Amino acid sequence: MQIKTTDATAYWIWYPGDFEKYHAMKQNFSRVERGCSWPAFWKSEGFRNRVAFRRKYHITKKTSFSVHGIKDSYGYVQVNDLKYPFGETIPCMPGEYSISVHIACISSMPSVYIDGDVVKSDTGWNADDFCFAPVPAAFNRYFTDKAEDPSEWHYSEKLFFPVDETEINGGVLYEFETELTAALEIRGSGTPVVYLGESRPEALDTNNCYYHCIPDSSSGMCPRQAVLFAFIPECKKGDYEVIAHHQYVDIPVVAKFRCDDEELNHIFDIASHTFSLCSGAFILDGIKRDKWIWGGDVYQSLFVNRFLTGDKELERRSLLALAGNDPVMTHVNTIIDYSLLWILSVYEHYLSYGDREFVDSMFPKMKSIMDLCMSQRDENGFIIPRKQDWLFIDWADFDRDGPLCALQILLAEAYRIMIYLSKEDSCRSLYGAEREKLLGNIEKHFWDSEKNGYIDSYTSGKRNITKHANIFAVIFGIADDKRKKTIAENILLNDSIPKITTPYFRFFELEALCELGYLDEVMKQIKSYWGGMLKLGAKTFWEQYDPEKPLEKQYEMYGDPYGKSLCHAWSSSPIYLLAKYFVGIKHLGPGGKKYEVRPEKAFFKRLDCSFPVGDRMVEIRISGNDTIVSE
Amino acid sequence: MQIKTTDATAYWIWYPGDFEKYHAMKQNFSRVERGCSWPAFWKSEGFRNRVAFRRKYHITKKTSFSVHGIKDSYGYVQVNDLKYPFGETIPCMPGEYSISVHIACISSMPSVYIDGDVVKSDTGWNADDFCFAPVPAAFNRYFTDKAEDPSEWHYSEKLFFPVDETEINGGVLYEFETELTAALEIRGSGTPVVYLGESRPEALDTNNCYYHCIPDSSSGMCPRQAVLFAFIPECKKGDYEVIAHHQYVDIPVVAKFRCDDEELNHIFDIASHTFSLCSGAFILDGIKRDKWIWGGDVYQSLFVNRFLTGDKELERRSLLALAGNDPVMTHVNTIIDYSLLWILSVYEHYLSYGDREFVDSMFPKMKSIMDLCMSQRDENGFIIPRKQDWLFIDWADFDRDGPLCALQILLAEAYRIMIYLSKEDSCRSLYGAEREKLLGNIEKHFWDSEKNGYIDSYTSGKRNITKHANIFAVIFGIADDKRKKTIAENILLNDSIPKITTPYFRFFELEALCELGYLDEVMKQIKSYWGGMLKLGAKTFWEQYDPEKPLEKQYEMYGDPYGKSLCHAWSSSPIYLLAKYFVGIKHLGPGGKKYEVRPEKAFFKRLDCSFPVGDRMVEIRISGNDTIVSE
Repeated sequence: MQIKTTDATAYWIWYPGDFEKYHAMKQNFSRVERGCSWPAFWKSEGFRNRVAFRRKYHITKKTSFSVHGIKDSYGYVQVNDLKYPFGETIPCMPGEYSISVHIACISSMPSVYIDGDVVKSDTGWNADDFCFAPVPAAFNRYFTDKAEDPSEWHYSEKLFFPVDETEINGGVLYEFETELTAALEIRGSGTPVVYLGESRPEALDTNNCYYHCIPDSSSGMCPRQAVLFAFIPECKKGDYEVIAHHQYVDIPVVAKFRCDDEELNHIFDIASHTFSLCSGAFILDGIKRDKWIWGGDVYQSLFVNRFLTGDKELERRSLLALAGNDPVMTHVNTIIDYSLLWILSVYEHYLSYGDREFVDSMFPKMKSIMDLCMSQRDENGFIIPRKQDWLFIDWADFDRDGPLCALQILLAEAYRIMIYLSKEDSCRSLYGAEREKLLGNIEKHFWDSEKNGYIDSYTSGKRNITKHANIFAVIFGIADDKRKKTIAENILLNDSIPKITTPYFRFFELEALCELGYLDEVMKQIKSYWGGMLKLGAKTFWEQYDPEKPLEKQYEMYGDPYGKSLCHAWSSSPIYLLAKYFVGIKHLGPGGKKYEVRPEKAFFKRLDCSFPVGDRMVEIRISGNDTIVSE
Repeated sequence: MQIKTTDATAYWIWYPGDFEKYHAMKQNFSRVERGCSWPAFWKSEGFRNRVAFRRKYHITKKTSFSVHGIKDSYGYVQVNDLKYPFGETIPCMPGEYSISVHIACISSMPSVYIDGDVVKSDTGWNADDFCFAPVPAAFNRYFTDKAEDPSEWHYSEKLFFPVDETEINGGVLYEFETELTAALEIRGSGTPVVYLGESRPEALDTNNCYYHCIPDSSSGMCPRQAVLFAFIPECKKGDYEVIAHHQYVDIPVVAKFRCDDEELNHIFDIASHTFSLCSGAFILDGIKRDKWIWGGDVYQSLFVNRFLTGDKELERRSLLALAGNDPVMTHVNTIIDYSLLWILSVYEHYLSYGDREFVDSMFPKMKSIMDLCMSQRDENGFIIPRKQDWLFIDWADFDRDGPLCALQILLAEAYRIMIYLSKEDSCRSLYGAEREKLLGNIEKHFWDSEKNGYIDSYTSGKRNITKHANIFAVIFGIADDKRKKTIAENILLNDSIPKITTPYFRFFELEALCELGYLDEVMKQIKSYWGGMLKLGAKTFWEQYDPEKPLEKQYEMYGDPYGKSLCHAWSSSPIYLLAKYFVGIKHLGPGGKKYEVRPEKAFFKRLDCSFPVGDRMVEIRISGNDTIVSE
């Protein structure tokens, strides 16, 4: 079964990456916390302000076209030697035409819609920013109508009414059936303050809840915001009608997962719902907080999205939103490891969809990011953060003296990907030599043959071991099979090594355990961790869950009583783990053109599921001893 | 006499260069030609979109402040550990405070106004763009009120009424006393088409005139545009009242020039008027066309401005508007020689005002531009345009095979300036060595000892001579005194060498002739060329003037019947030539702290003038045998 793709006759076109840079800023600047606007704190990259689109046409029959610029733009159309303003119908008699559309815009990305039977803004236009060599113009399937404005994202909308209204604390608490990203409409007299919550306690805590608003006095509408509970103080039932306009980007979930274990089915469904809420114009970390596009979160989400929606455009928008203009001067989100994860992300995207053209278009930027990373290396080839860089890896007590092992393993993997994706011998041999040198120095300086693991730092003399570098060594194949086994027994399953405490890094840990064959352990964790959230009534999966704490202690994070995001993309990883390691779907090459399906039958008495693999849908059914795999 | 400067209590502040990049785009995108919007065709550099302003305060007495963001901005104020929204009054008890103001804006440059007795946006705030090391925040004297919007330039306004109304061609022609940059207000019934002209024929030629518009139906206002004549067809006198709202930036002319030669006085006045019209937010080439900020035009204008207004902010805005973000990837206006002239411009600005702080703030960008230029050199150290670069120098028939001599001389001069302005030995020795090498190769390859001049190209074998490289060799001291004399006699005053035909390069030619002492020749040219325009009734000086042609043939240029700009900044150069070479004011070091005045008395029976020299005014009077110079 092929996955349907949209094919419009014409699109709004722009310089590649500009749409994403513009809308990413809108997204990353949209966070509001307790009345304070909180724009993301990294270098925010501007779109281009002056672009030309060019194309040659051989016209065989009289035709005409007109060009429409994005609002507040300046520009003209040049047809051979003649100039025309935007909006004017331009006749073309049969002949040879060289057409260029010149556009400038300050407030949003320059974008045009070319309307005609023959001359139109479909594929085939080149975009020139007067700096780099022209590249194919970009577009997307959401902007195919000349009446649209590509500077405004038009969300699909669905109305939700409260499933419960309760008089409490002198006001009314409204509860929806699930968490939404909604603009609340408040009908009734006056303009009350509305307190929103991802949880009941948050909405009721008018002093500390993360977000409150006053509806627009004429329309009664509140801004689009994450909401599960809404509280209006000083009112009674019936005073107000509260309607949630859930606004979303239509990215269909194409995966299906049903097995004989209802808890697993439920985990899959809630993970799917969580991921869908976090996926719109871009992949966000969470819908209440941060509402930002983070490179690490996007990287992990690619694994989920591969099996859930197979929507490659969502991934591309997110990758383009993360990367700066060339030459890249700052790290993705200021985080040095996120720059490397961005390189890894392009590889994962290629593995999912096999689109060589996209990789080729990204390759100059990959090189630019690698140039930045490589400019920060010491004499051993180890990458070191600059003063302005954030070295994250994880919230964990690393020995951060000198080069950090986990970061060097990411660099080695980034080299591998550059070698794999490069089309040029010179490029391959450059990165190849650097990788060899780096691997030698990682082995020499970080492998501790007494402790049987990779140490964080070799410069401090402390020879501290955390799981992180060892997990990376397993996942990214730095360790050979024998060493992987050693690491598994001595480090990963060793209770005296500090536990991984963040769900972010738990993704890597579970991946490593799966790769090492500890599926029973992983299934146990899926059911206890994600199943644990369900037992507490979670309607979406949380940023973090501590099984030791009762529900009322689950909301605090980062020192903020309601700081924890209760709908967080990275908590959707069971989708990936189930699809790849339990249903057993493995991509054996780009786009999954070659793949294998080897379900772990021990876990399923019955299984009825389908997942996208590249541009196909693969169905897997297990019933008793029968396993049927079909496309 | 000291020149007065404005000292406001608080300003709108922004990241250095952002204000200029934003307003330069508005300016460079504002050109309209026959109904076609025509944005400038070079890489247009975005302002930053996310900035933080930071400062520490030691508060001794209870105070408060509030922060106001530019429209459509996002942000918050952090005071030690507490966050506040924009607009809120923030109390500060005595103590130590670390204050940061975070702001993001997509549609214009992030800018804030901090309003308070102690905590306020005066000098002393640092700006951080999350990429480079923090730098002092920037501001200007035009935006000192929190009610203002720094994304909109507020022009001073003066009303002009037509000095003549004539019924002609079935309509009415309105003439103003001089050319203006005005928004016309059309009072009367209906919304007629209004045709504007810098000349009577242009306004009357409704098919070919450069600019026409329809007044806003409710206000009757037309867009701000260059106008001397306005024509409304199909109407009679009295049908409409036409009022010109002349909109200008108040940059006072402080120079005065009066001598016994009324023609010279008139030339000075018209040059002054021309320059003032072309100087607003930035120095433009012309007010009808191109209305763009060009590096070569700005360079020449600095010489005029030094002696006319002494307004250093006008120059800084223009220099900042021309230069790209770091690292610089494209040449100024795409023109390789304009990048080098930009380096030379910083030097001229320093010579005028002696502000070391500004030079230091520009130095990283100067290095970045030099890096770009130096990356394009061949094995001889000669700079070669890339495919995407425009090598201009002048509209002239150069032998453009291989390296062009004139460009190499500009590079040598740029090296000299980098050496002169650098504070680091390593920098000085780098550029010093490159300059030495380059000078040797210029001598070896371009000096032709038989022809007694510098040839355009040595690779073609044609050994073609034009005046341009030879003029540069004189001005920039590549030639020693003996050779200068040789060049003057054999090249500059040699009728068999093609004449300089553009007023742009005539600036350099007259400068060279002055330097060589041919003042009689220069005065002759001033009176014939500029005096010639006056005799044809010019109210502003033109982009170009051909003494051979009658008035009605003067309007055509670039193949366009009204293509010539009749109010062009570079035609104001008599102000500079008169001040420096005839009144004889020479800056002997930065800021003219040392200067000399040696009037060429032979040209003046009487002289009564005053010119700015750095931050002083110098008065020079000649009456008979008496010469009085005073400050």
